[in-house]
Amino acid sequence: MEERLKKIKAFVFDVDGVFTDGGILATADGDLFRVFDSKDSFGLRMAYMKGYPVGVITGGVSESIRKRFRTCAVPEENIYLGSRAKIEDFEHFCNKYSLKADEVMYFGDDLPDIPVMVACGCGACPCDAVDEVKAVADYISPRPGGKGFVREALEMVMKLQGKWELDVEDYKSKF
Amino acid sequence: MEERLKKIKAFVFDVDGVFTDGGILATADGDLFRVFDSKDSFGLRMAYMKGYPVGVITGGVSESIRKRFRTCAVPEENIYLGSRAKIEDFEHFCNKYSLKADEVMYFGDDLPDIPVMVACGCGACPCDAVDEVKAVADYISPRPGGKGFVREALEMVMKLQGKWELDVEDYKSKF
Amino acid sequence: MEERLKKIKAFVFDVDGVFTDGGILATADGDLFRVFDSKDSFGLRMAYMKGYPVGVITGGVSESIRKRFRTCAVPEENIYLGSRAKIEDFEHFCNKYSLKADEVMYFGDDLPDIPVMVACGCGACPCDAVDEVKAVADYISPRPGGKGFVREALEMVMKLQGKWELDVEDYKSKF
Amino acid sequence: MEERLKKIKAFVFDVDGVFTDGGILATADGDLFRVFDSKDSFGLRMAYMKGYPVGVITGGVSESIRKRFRTCAVPEENIYLGSRAKIEDFEHFCNKYSLKADEVMYFGDDLPDIPVMVACGCGACPCDAVDEVKAVADYISPRPGGKGFVREALEMVMKLQGKWELDVEDYKSKF
Repeated sequence: MEERLKKIKAFVFDVDGVFTDGGILATADGDLFRVFDSKDSFGLRMAYMKGYPVGVITGGVSESIRKRFRTCAVPEENIYLGSRAKIEDFEHFCNKYSLKADEVMYFGDDLPDIPVMVACGCGACPCDAVDEVKAVADYISPRPGGKGFVREALEMVMKLQGKWELDVEDYKSKF
Repeated sequence: MEERLKKIKAFVFDVDGVFTDGGILATADGDLFRVFDSKDSFGLRMAYMKGYPVGVITGGVSESIRKRFRTCAVPEENIYLGSRAKIEDFEHFCNKYSLKADEVMYFGDDLPDIPVMVACGCGACPCDAVDEVKAVADYISPRPGGKGFVREALEMVMKLQGKWELDVEDYKSKF
Repeated sequence: MEERLKKIKAFVFDVDGVFTDGGILATADGDLFRVFDSKDSFGLRMAYMKGYPVGVITGGVSESIRKRFRTCAVPEENIYLGSRAKIEDFEHFCNKYSLKADEVMYFGDDLPDIPVMVACGCGACPCDAVDEVKAVADYISPRPGGKGFVREALEMVMKLQGKWELDVEDYKSKF
Repeated sequence: MEERLKKIKAFVFDVDGVFTDGGILATADGDLFRVFDSKDSFGLRMAYMKGYPVGVITGGVSESIRKRFRTCAVPEENIYLGSRAKIEDFEHFCNKYSLKADEVMYFGDDLPDIPVMVACGCGACPCDAVDEVKAVADYISPRPGGKGFVREALEMVMKLQGKWELDVEDYKSKF
């Protein structure tokens, strides 16, 4: 496992059930809002400051998702909305950065995530993922989706790679 | 119980306390928003892909409810809002699809659901339903409303009937 | 206690921490939204159908509070917003219905509720009320605010008084 | 510890994970809403009524944060939004009120809070703060962020200083 994690050079994420507890607030005009976690968001910012490419692949299509990840420095073109065959978007991301699949960590929780979980370098899931995902995951976090899962797993990898120190001047200049 | 579940051909749902934890966000203009669960939503999409008719019968009247279920492929005319005598709407649904009551599974949690719970083929409730509903339910889920109840119970029936495999091409073409 | 509860003829409620878990969603224009519980709301409707006067006394001032309780049939003039000295509003409510204080049950959870908790016929609080309120409460519910407290305590009194049967025709005609 | 707390004359707070459980509701226009706690808010009002200066230092920039704290009587100029080097804003606050750092209590939960946690008179964190913060905290509350942490810690200090009695007339005149 440690060998596997040392090779990770980029992070790709599903959204619902990963950055959230699966909750989707349905508004009157049909738009769907989600509750993200501030500690997860800070984890994403740390990943950006340390130079890891980050991608997001979700079946959702809300503009709010795009806006949220843009403030965490995820590039516009790395936010794949309305994804149905996630493995295709995952391969697109890998090609863009000339990464091999086993250099990328993927965070997922439900059936549509399974093909990517299996293909990537380390498939991580929250403790409340569905059984089929847990069965193929390389890492099952002690934390549930939306309640520290992303931060916990990101931090584990970045600490292992010696990349988890906050440089306040760097933070001021980049955000 | 297994015999009872093998006969199920359609699913009908209450909303508050079933798809949600009972929480209703009250906004300034009087509209009420609800938090749905992404795994429940995916379960509804699986039911649609496998051909089960789906209906929703709620006392609520929010446009947000209609919009939410439309994106899960529930037909407009199967979404009964502002229902007071739910058994009448349930019978309307059964007649529309020429289904006998015992071929339909109903998901409810509070007093107004009881007549349908008793009439249908399998009355399912979350573990946090009111005592009167639990007393008449055929199936009490280990999960509470809004936190996996719908997905758990749907999945149980569909797996029993051999209908729980995701076909990514089918998913791409239908959603 | 049972004697005390048999005399109750009306219900008066604080809002935050009673109908809610204390959470207040702060929006950009300064308005504050709250999450109410569908089972509590149905309890209020039962109280209305059985003829109990209902009042709400809150320090909050949001229009969303007024709208929410109006749909549960609480009369406009019984919704006291922006209350600072709650005991004065409580006395106004009692006078309006010619009720003695010990014929009214009050639901509260924090320091500003204490004078009414002490004056009323039965002061009820959720299990997560502050210590000072618990110390003077006549009834401490096993349920926390926003998660079944109101429904549990209302139901207890109405069942004791033989007023907890849903008449669907009555429900259809009144809501 | 008691000696340390008796010297406290002012309170300064981080927002996410302190006044909230870390949840950030992402809306379609990019604005971020947060859920505050009514008991925490009342604690802030008590601090104001008893004369403690209060400040807020957050990386967030939402207008909703400013509006929320204004209704709790935190002065406009004490609400530091978009803070990156929190220690600089903390020193600005101390200078404004001619306070020494060890006369100010600070409430934080994540890496950017650490320099202030270390510099202030008492660094308090919720039980769900990150490990690095817990390691330097003077006080770890039994309550998590957004669920009573602020109220619990504020109340502890104010009771120790004999400043925790609600004067209803004072409340009426100031809010």
